[in-house]
Amino acid sequence: MSGVVGPEGGSMRELLRVGPGAVDLAAIDPRSTPGLPAAAGHGSARKEWARGQVELVGAELGRQQEMLYAAAQGAAGPGSATSAPSQAGARLDGDRPRRVLLVLQAMDCGGKDGAVKRVAGAMNPLGLHIRSFGPPTEEERRHDFLWRVRRALPPPGYVGVFNRSHYEDVLIARVEELVDEATWRSRYAIINDFERELVEQSVTVVKVMLHISYAEQGERLMERLTDPTKYWKYNPSDLDTRARWDDYRAAYTEALERCGTDAAPWFVLPADRKWYRDWALAHLLRETFDGLDLGYPPADFDVERERDRLRDQGGK
Amino acid sequence: MSGVVGPEGGSMRELLRVGPGAVDLAAIDPRSTPGLPAAAGHGSARKEWARGQVELVGAELGRQQEMLYAAAQGAAGPGSATSAPSQAGARLDGDRPRRVLLVLQAMDCGGKDGAVKRVAGAMNPLGLHIRSFGPPTEEERRHDFLWRVRRALPPPGYVGVFNRSHYEDVLIARVEELVDEATWRSRYAIINDFERELVEQSVTVVKVMLHISYAEQGERLMERLTDPTKYWKYNPSDLDTRARWDDYRAAYTEALERCGTDAAPWFVLPADRKWYRDWALAHLLRETFDGLDLGYPPADFDVERERDRLRDQGGK
Repeated sequence: MSGVVGPEGGSMRELLRVGPGAVDLAAIDPRSTPGLPAAAGHGSARKEWARGQVELVGAELGRQQEMLYAAAQGAAGPGSATSAPSQAGARLDGDRPRRVLLVLQAMDCGGKDGAVKRVAGAMNPLGLHIRSFGPPTEEERRHDFLWRVRRALPPPGYVGVFNRSHYEDVLIARVEELVDEATWRSRYAIINDFERELVEQSVTVVKVMLHISYAEQGERLMERLTDPTKYWKYNPSDLDTRARWDDYRAAYTEALERCGTDAAPWFVLPADRKWYRDWALAHLLRETFDGLDLGYPPADFDVERERDRLRDQGGK
Repeated sequence: MSGVVGPEGGSMRELLRVGPGAVDLAAIDPRSTPGLPAAAGHGSARKEWARGQVELVGAELGRQQEMLYAAAQGAAGPGSATSAPSQAGARLDGDRPRRVLLVLQAMDCGGKDGAVKRVAGAMNPLGLHIRSFGPPTEEERRHDFLWRVRRALPPPGYVGVFNRSHYEDVLIARVEELVDEATWRSRYAIINDFERELVEQSVTVVKVMLHISYAEQGERLMERLTDPTKYWKYNPSDLDTRARWDDYRAAYTEALERCGTDAAPWFVLPADRKWYRDWALAHLLRETFDGLDLGYPPADFDVERERDRLRDQGGK
């Protein structure tokens, strides 16, 4: 990782972690830049510096993702969407192959799509499993709220990204009163159980709230109403949601407080500055991969013998 | 697209198209570089030139993909995996929103994964729908061979990539005699019907065979047996497949001849040189997008009125 300058004052995981227990979103400035090193420089130079760093860290994310993917090759099972023959394959330590799940939540215009494009986009799309959650379909509404979420989990070896998630069921469902209070109140514990279960199944869960200000949302919405290539991103209902900003803020706060567990922690990432958002998210993911201590799996065949066989078939 | 130099001597679609009717794979040199312009220079300089061009064309692919995605926003239906509210949305001409499906086939080591990484990787992963087809599972084998393929189709607005495909059912299934001859013979017509149906459902199908030589495959296999970070890509059965090279060649030839239809054409892309492979594939996709004549959808709301509403909510 030559050229990469890491965060200062702690890891991104330490600097951005919230919960369990009291969370004060008002105390986290959406324009702040926790961990940004002095090397970033000042003023607008920081933007260019961060873009370059995201490219470097992105290349490292790509390498880590490949190791994650490699370790799962040959793993049988319903999630195994691989082009390799399904022979029992290379896996470290006989462990279940790992998966990573990035959960992205934000108010409208919070930058989820941009973050996916720039940070997840640095990885090989073959190993990504991205799922967006909109309003539940009729079929989805007939099941419990986690049904569609379970079906959207990444297979072993994949990096999953949830663009919105089961947290909508304690956010919009609460604010818009789509269910009664007893129902959404019961969901925090259900979510914690579910996520603990995921972790036990070798899923590394990283939950990120992209934290933007009311003013920044206003500017970004106006951009969508000014640039005709962005009209498609706008929906009149966005303003109804914006009118309930404080209610959503309260709902987010409670979700962070109750579900920011050690097994599946929540991170609040100041996101008014897009360049900082991408930089911080890239490092957060890099640290997460580092913690998995990944490596390429050893050969599960006799390398010398295979080389001989290949030479017999004209390989050089 | 400043800086982009297009192919010479015809479009990539014209230069690489094969079928219907007689196809002579032996007459297509896997090291050739059809369409490569004089601007590419000579010798190893061409590699660097091509990499730079792929980046430029990739950015254009990203823009086209966004327009494709934008046109489908708000489209209801089972495939609509969007985070936007499901209100009937912006679509051009009341047409069904389009989708693009890239089908990639190749012998082992043909470069499918690399092509996906470098060319599809230039697009926003949010709008990609990549599916790899391995040996069918038990459940898949209980259904007809197209069952799993239909389930893997991209939703409207998405760019789908099939990493292997239903063509395996007339390739490996034929060579390894997984089904009897009458069965695989019947599949060419079934595939043509299926693909015609897709085209009628607004799917633009681009089928690409990455064409490598026996010698190049030998070198790439040896690389996988030499570099420990590549062991995971190797499987001893790869050599059993290599031993049947001519049989596979014959199976590919017949698939290209019978299924290279005008509705869903086949392209044979010389792929011994990775830099040419990526360059040619990027242009092939660019031309495909160009043919769709995409644009951003108009607003389906009153722009002025929404701006006023936003101003009332503090937007600037």
